[in-house]
Amino acid sequence: MTVPIVHDDLATLEFLLGTWRGEGRGEYPTIDEFTYREEIDFTHVGKPFLIYRQRTWDDRGGPLHTESGYLRPVGTHAAELIIAQPTGVTEIHTGEVFGTKLAMSAAQVGLSPTAKRVTAVTRTVSVLGDELTYRLEMAAVGQQLQLHLEAKLYRVLDD
Amino acid sequence: MTVPIVHDDLATLEFLLGTWRGEGRGEYPTIDEFTYREEIDFTHVGKPFLIYRQRTWDDRGGPLHTESGYLRPVGTHAAELIIAQPTGVTEIHTGEVFGTKLAMSAAQVGLSPTAKRVTAVTRTVSVLGDELTYRLEMAAVGQQLQLHLEAKLYRVLDD
Repeated sequence: MTVPIVHDDLATLEFLLGTWRGEGRGEYPTIDEFTYREEIDFTHVGKPFLIYRQRTWDDRGGPLHTESGYLRPVGTHAAELIIAQPTGVTEIHTGEVFGTKLAMSAAQVGLSPTAKRVTAVTRTVSVLGDELTYRLEMAAVGQQLQLHLEAKLYRVLDD
Repeated sequence: MTVPIVHDDLATLEFLLGTWRGEGRGEYPTIDEFTYREEIDFTHVGKPFLIYRQRTWDDRGGPLHTESGYLRPVGTHAAELIIAQPTGVTEIHTGEVFGTKLAMSAAQVGLSPTAKRVTAVTRTVSVLGDELTYRLEMAAVGQQLQLHLEAKLYRVLDD
């Protein structure tokens, strides 16, 4: 297997490539506050998109959330994030790239018949050296848009 | 790492678990007919959903399509399929399970601002022993719902 060359269109998103591990915390008016361990991968296959996968675990290693999808560059300073979740939710975000920061807002949230009612999501992701932080705000189950998740992860050099 | 036990709610979808490899063909009024190599994985983490990932390649090994998502059982004879695609498309299917056949129709198709206009998708997946066949019909770019992809894959015992 040859390692593909990163597509030219990914120049502004390349800072996300790699595996990231760390910890986060979640809160919402309808649930107890919680903490989690997390791993995020951004990979590519030589085409003009990043492949995104995320997994979280509780303190005893039990699986919590997971999601997967794709990050598409749009021109040189914008992007689209396309996500599927096992909770029956899809998110289609549009947003902007500022250096090594990504600020996204869901243009569409798709819900399967059995999914919880998520109505709005924003996601910001910032990379500083080998540290990635993100913040996710959500409006769901009748609550206003507000902080749901924040986490700090570090780039893993060898897997 | 301990191998998780398959969740009880996955009893009717368990026949999909594993890695499948094979070949397919695609057609549509707006493009030339084409063939492809394909790999599909259905995995699980002990929770009540299957993790789905699919990749296709051309005859020279160049990457073509990929998509990822989740299959959620609903009761004992229904399911929801939640998919994200790097083309900017999400699909939320509902459908039924008949033995080892899954017949799904997209209840929602989500499109990012730069995605091609896909308006309807149906997917049927059948497993007979170690053979998986699927058929995908699509309405897109102004065309009626019609055959777009069909493929035959075989279960891979060791990866």
